[in-house]
Amino acid sequence: MDSKTFKEWGHTVVDWISQYMEGMEAYPVLSQVRPGEIKGKLPGGAPFEPERMERIFDDFKRIIIPGMTHWQHPSFFAYFPANTSGPSILAEFLMAAMGAQCMVWQTSPAATELEEVVMEWLRQMLGLPEGWSGVIQDTASTSTLCALLCARERSTGFAVNRRGFLQGSEKKLIVYTSEEAHSSIEKGVKIAGFGRENIRAVPTDDNFAMIPGELEKSIARDKRSGHLPCCVVATLGTTSSTAMDPLRPIGEICQRFNLWFHVDAAMAGTAAMLPEMKHIMDGIEYADSFVFNPHKWMFTNFDCSAYFCKDADALTSTFEILPEYLKTDLDRQVKNFRDWGVPLGRRFRALKLWFVIRYFGVKGLQEKVRVHIALAKEFESWILQARDFELVAPRTINLVCFRYHPLGNDLSEDKLEALNKSLMDELNRSGKLFLTHTKLRGKFSLRMCIGQTNVSRDHVMRAWDAIKEMAKRLSSP
Amino acid sequence: MDSKTFKEWGHTVVDWISQYMEGMEAYPVLSQVRPGEIKGKLPGGAPFEPERMERIFDDFKRIIIPGMTHWQHPSFFAYFPANTSGPSILAEFLMAAMGAQCMVWQTSPAATELEEVVMEWLRQMLGLPEGWSGVIQDTASTSTLCALLCARERSTGFAVNRRGFLQGSEKKLIVYTSEEAHSSIEKGVKIAGFGRENIRAVPTDDNFAMIPGELEKSIARDKRSGHLPCCVVATLGTTSSTAMDPLRPIGEICQRFNLWFHVDAAMAGTAAMLPEMKHIMDGIEYADSFVFNPHKWMFTNFDCSAYFCKDADALTSTFEILPEYLKTDLDRQVKNFRDWGVPLGRRFRALKLWFVIRYFGVKGLQEKVRVHIALAKEFESWILQARDFELVAPRTINLVCFRYHPLGNDLSEDKLEALNKSLMDELNRSGKLFLTHTKLRGKFSLRMCIGQTNVSRDHVMRAWDAIKEMAKRLSSP
Repeated sequence: MDSKTFKEWGHTVVDWISQYMEGMEAYPVLSQVRPGEIKGKLPGGAPFEPERMERIFDDFKRIIIPGMTHWQHPSFFAYFPANTSGPSILAEFLMAAMGAQCMVWQTSPAATELEEVVMEWLRQMLGLPEGWSGVIQDTASTSTLCALLCARERSTGFAVNRRGFLQGSEKKLIVYTSEEAHSSIEKGVKIAGFGRENIRAVPTDDNFAMIPGELEKSIARDKRSGHLPCCVVATLGTTSSTAMDPLRPIGEICQRFNLWFHVDAAMAGTAAMLPEMKHIMDGIEYADSFVFNPHKWMFTNFDCSAYFCKDADALTSTFEILPEYLKTDLDRQVKNFRDWGVPLGRRFRALKLWFVIRYFGVKGLQEKVRVHIALAKEFESWILQARDFELVAPRTINLVCFRYHPLGNDLSEDKLEALNKSLMDELNRSGKLFLTHTKLRGKFSLRMCIGQTNVSRDHVMRAWDAIKEMAKRLSSP
Repeated sequence: MDSKTFKEWGHTVVDWISQYMEGMEAYPVLSQVRPGEIKGKLPGGAPFEPERMERIFDDFKRIIIPGMTHWQHPSFFAYFPANTSGPSILAEFLMAAMGAQCMVWQTSPAATELEEVVMEWLRQMLGLPEGWSGVIQDTASTSTLCALLCARERSTGFAVNRRGFLQGSEKKLIVYTSEEAHSSIEKGVKIAGFGRENIRAVPTDDNFAMIPGELEKSIARDKRSGHLPCCVVATLGTTSSTAMDPLRPIGEICQRFNLWFHVDAAMAGTAAMLPEMKHIMDGIEYADSFVFNPHKWMFTNFDCSAYFCKDADALTSTFEILPEYLKTDLDRQVKNFRDWGVPLGRRFRALKLWFVIRYFGVKGLQEKVRVHIALAKEFESWILQARDFELVAPRTINLVCFRYHPLGNDLSEDKLEALNKSLMDELNRSGKLFLTHTKLRGKFSLRMCIGQTNVSRDHVMRAWDAIKEMAKRLSSP
C-alpha cells in the first residue's frame, strides 16, 4: 500500500473511529452474538488473490463489530476497565507506523530513553521510593512473573538459572500471598517452577485484606518444616473487591525473614496519584518490586504494565543473555531493556504514556480518578439506602461489590446466587450495561467497577435504575 | 479528548504518517543520536497542567523522531526485519480505538473467533499438519517458553506445576538445541527452571545445521548419566545465518526417545508459504509445537508471533487457571485464549493478520517473499564474484553472511574482525543503510538481511556500492 492509498484509507478510518466514539452508546456493551456466529461468517482458508480495502473494511464493520464487546462504552462496569483515550490511540497509531522494535538502545534510542523518562515520572507520581527503576511490561501477569523469578534467583544465589531448580535438594521455595490474590500469582508460580502446592494462601480479615499475623505464622511453620520462605506478594486492590493489604506490617515481616516483597497494585496503583489516597502506599519502602497497569485505569490503551524495582541488577541478572548478534559498542553506557523481561522484542509503548500524561497533565488524571471514586462512593450510598440490596465487601476505591437480597424472603445462599446470576445475565443481555461477578466468602456478588474514561454520573444513575428495575422484574411472580 | 478533537488530530497524524512513508529515504536508517541526548531534552518530572496536543506532537517530531532507528526504511538490512504495511497499521489503529481486552470469549467474541480463523489460514499456508491449533503470542521468546513449559509438564506428568520442580529428585530435565540456536532458548530454559547447565548445544555441520547423529549421542549420554531428556528445539533459519536444522531425522529421534519437539522458525517460517521452499518443513509432522513471527517477514507490525501446537490440551493444562471472577457460562463451548499463554490480558492482534493476508492475498505475500529471496541470491552472487569479499555461511533464504577480506594481505582473524567492524560502523554512521554482525565459527561476519516491505533491487544495489566504496576507503593508506 503506497503512501497515497494509505492516506486515503487513513482518513476514512479516522472518520469511522470518530463516528464510533460519537455513537458508542448505541452499541450493546456486551456483544450479543452466539458462539460460532462470527466464525461461521468467515471463509475456512486464506484468499489467494488480493482483496480490495473497501471489502476488507466493510467486512470489519459488518462481521467484526457485532462481535465486539465495547470496552470503551461508558456503561462498561465489568472486570477492571481497560480504558483508552484520544492521545493514547494517536500514539499507538504512530508506533504502528514507525514499526520500531525497541529491544536494545540502538534499535531506537528515543524509545529506550523515553521509557526511562516516563517511568521516572510515574515513579514520582505514585510516590515510589527514589532510586527505583521502571520498565514497561505487557501485563501484570508478566510483571509478577518477573518478580517471582527475581525472588527465586536472589534466594538461591542465582542457582536455579544456573543449575536448575534446587536439584537434589529437599528444600521447597515458598511463596505467600492472600487468599484473595489474583490468579496470575498461581500462574507465575507454576511457570517459574515453584509448584502450586508451595503457595500459601494467607487468610484475610473482614476487609478481605491479608492478616500480617497469619503471614508470620505461616512463614514460621514453613521454616520449622525445613522449607525456604522466598517471596510475599501483597495486593493493593484485589480483583474481587479491591481490598488493600497493609504494606507496612507485611514489609516488616519480609525484612525480618529476608523475603522478596512484591506488590501487585495492577488496578489500584493509579489511585496512589491522589494525595488523599497515598496512605495505601504506606510501607512501600519495604518492597522489592511493584506493578500497576496504566492500561487499566490511566487512559493508556492495553497493553502497558508499569513494573518498578528497587534493585535493577537483580532483574537484569535474572534475564540477561548476550549473544554476539545483539552486542553493540554502547552496551555499558546505555540501558538495553531486552534484559528487563521475558520477550526479546519490544514495542515503543513509552510513547503512549508520554502522550497521555502530557495531554491530561497530572491534574487531569487526578481529576478523572477522583470523579470515578466519588461516583463509586455515591453508588455505594444508594446500595446502603436500598432495602433490597446489600454491600458484600467494603468499598476502598472505585469498585462496589453488592447483591440483590430481597427483604422478607428467607432465601438460601444458593437461591441468592441464582437470583443474582439471573440479574447479571439479564442486565448484560439488555446491552445497556456490562457488569461481572465474583464470590466473596462464598457469597455470589456483583461487581460494579467505575473507571471507564468517559463514564459520567448519568451513566451510573442509569445503571442503578436498570439494576433496580430488573431486580424487581425478576422478583415479581 | 472528544470525538471532534480526535478527528482533527487523527487527520493530522494520517497526513504526517503518509509524509513519513513518502519521505522515509531522507532519514538516516540508524539513529545518529548519542547516549543521553534524547533524555537530556525531556523534563525530569511529569507536567501538572495539561498540555496542548500541538505541543506534544511538535515535540514528537522534534525530539523523538531524530532518536528513532527507522525499521521501515527500505535500506534496513539489520537483524531480522520487523516490517509493517498499510493494512497492518490501519488495523492496529482500529484495535487501539476499540481498546478491547480479549482475554476470554465474551470479552470480545470476534477477537477469539477471528484468531481461530486466521491461525487456521496460516496453518494451511505454511503446510502445518491438519488438526493443529494456533494462538497468537507476543514474540518467539514467549512462544518458545510456552513450548518448554509444555515439555516440562508432559515429561513429569504435570508434577512441576503441582509440586514444584522435581523436588527431592536427582533427575535433571535436559533440553537440546543446536549451538547456533537463538538466545531465547537459554532465556526460556532459565525462566522455566531447567537451569542453563541442562541445555545441550548440539554441534552443527558445515551449513551450521544441527547434526542429528550428535543429538542422538548426546541424548544417549544423558540417559546413561540418569538424566531425563525432555525437549529438543530445532531451528528453521538460525539468527546468525538462517541455517535450517533437518526436521525429519531430528523428529525421528524425538519420537524414539519420546521427547517434546519444538521448531523455532521465527523468521524463516514465512518462506514455507512458497511451494519451492516447502522442503524446509519436511518432517514437521513429528513436531509438537512450532513458532513463526508474522511480525518479522509477513508485513504485520510487531508484535505478532504465531504459535502452533499438536495437542492444545497440553498447552491449556499447563497454563489453566479459573478464578471465580473469570468464569462464564460458555466456558465449555468456546475457546478462552487466556489459558494459552503467559499473560492474562490480550490485544486483538488477529485483526491485523486478517487485514494483511486479505490485502496482499497469499499470492501477494508469496511474491514479496520470493522477490526478497531473489535479491539475496543476487547479492550473494556479487559477493562470490568480488575478489575482496567472501561468504561466511551458505545462503538459505534472504540473509547473506559475508565479510570483507582483501586479497594479497595476509590478515589475521583479529585484523579481519577489526576491519569488518569498522566497515559496519562506518556504513551505519553514514545513515544510508543499516546492517549488523554475528560470529560464525569465530569469524566476525556482516549480515545483510533483505526483507523490508518496500526494499527494491535498487536499494540492494546502492547498499552494495556503498559497501564496496567504504571497504576501499578503509583499505587505502
